[in-house]
Amino acid sequence: MKIIGIEHVGIAVDDLEETSSFWGDILRIAHTHTEKVESEGVNTKIFDTGKGKIELLDSLEEYSPIRKFLHKRGPGIHHVCLEVEDINIAIKELKESKIQTINENPTIGAEGYKIVFIHPKFTGGVLVELAEKPI
Amino acid sequence: MKIIGIEHVGIAVDDLEETSSFWGDILRIAHTHTEKVESEGVNTKIFDTGKGKIELLDSLEEYSPIRKFLHKRGPGIHHVCLEVEDINIAIKELKESKIQTINENPTIGAEGYKIVFIHPKFTGGVLVELAEKPI
Repeated sequence: MKIIGIEHVGIAVDDLEETSSFWGDILRIAHTHTEKVESEGVNTKIFDTGKGKIELLDSLEEYSPIRKFLHKRGPGIHHVCLEVEDINIAIKELKESKIQTINENPTIGAEGYKIVFIHPKFTGGVLVELAEKPI
Repeated sequence: MKIIGIEHVGIAVDDLEETSSFWGDILRIAHTHTEKVESEGVNTKIFDTGKGKIELLDSLEEYSPIRKFLHKRGPGIHHVCLEVEDINIAIKELKESKIQTINENPTIGAEGYKIVFIHPKFTGGVLVELAEKPI
C-alpha cells in the first residue's frame, strides 16, 4: 500500500465549541469544515494546518465509540488517520498480513473519504484509520 | 504564531522493535531516524510519511513521563506535535493568552528541534508539542 501522509489526528472532546477555541483562536489553525457523520455517530469540526488536520469529535449518541472512549479515558487523542492512495489495496494487503480491520469494507467518513479502522491490538495500542480521498 | 503543519504524532510503546514492524513492514512508512533523547528520557524511532512523522517512544528511565503514561494508560498515542515557524513567538503568544507551557523556555528534542509542551488542561486533554525545525 502507499501511505501519502498523516491526514488527521482525531480528538475526542466533551464540548466541541469550547475546545474549538484553543485550535482556532489560540493556535489560529484554519477551521475548514463542520459535519455530522451519522455512520460514525459523531459531530466533527475540522481544523486544517495545510499539512495534516485536527479533527475534533463529539458524540451524537449515548453508546457511540467516542462516548465510550470519553467515559473510559476522558477527552484526548482518539486516533491517527493516514491517507492511502487506494483503500481497497490497503485492506487486501492488511488481510494478507493477518491484520484485522474493524469493518471488512470501507465506509464513508467525514469529507467523503473512504475509511477503515485497524484494530489497536495489531498496531501497539493505537487506533489507526486509513482513508482514501474522494475524487 | 504560524503553525506550519503536523510535525509528528508521538506514540508510547512497550517495545520499540516489536512495534516498529507494524509501521515499517506492514504500512511501509520509511524509517528515517533513531535517537536517544536524554533530555526527554526516551528512545525514539521515527517513521516519515513525507507529510507528518510517526515517532515511537520508549522510556529510558524508571520515572520518565513516558513510563508514567504507560503505567497509567498502556501503550498508545502520547502527544501531537505541531511545527511552528518561530518557537519563541509561539511561547510569547501563549503566555499572553494565559496558556501555560510545561517548560518556560524551549528545550532540544529529537532531530534537534526546539520544542515546548503545552499543558493538556489548556487544550481539552491533549498533550500538544510545538516544535521549530533547526536551521
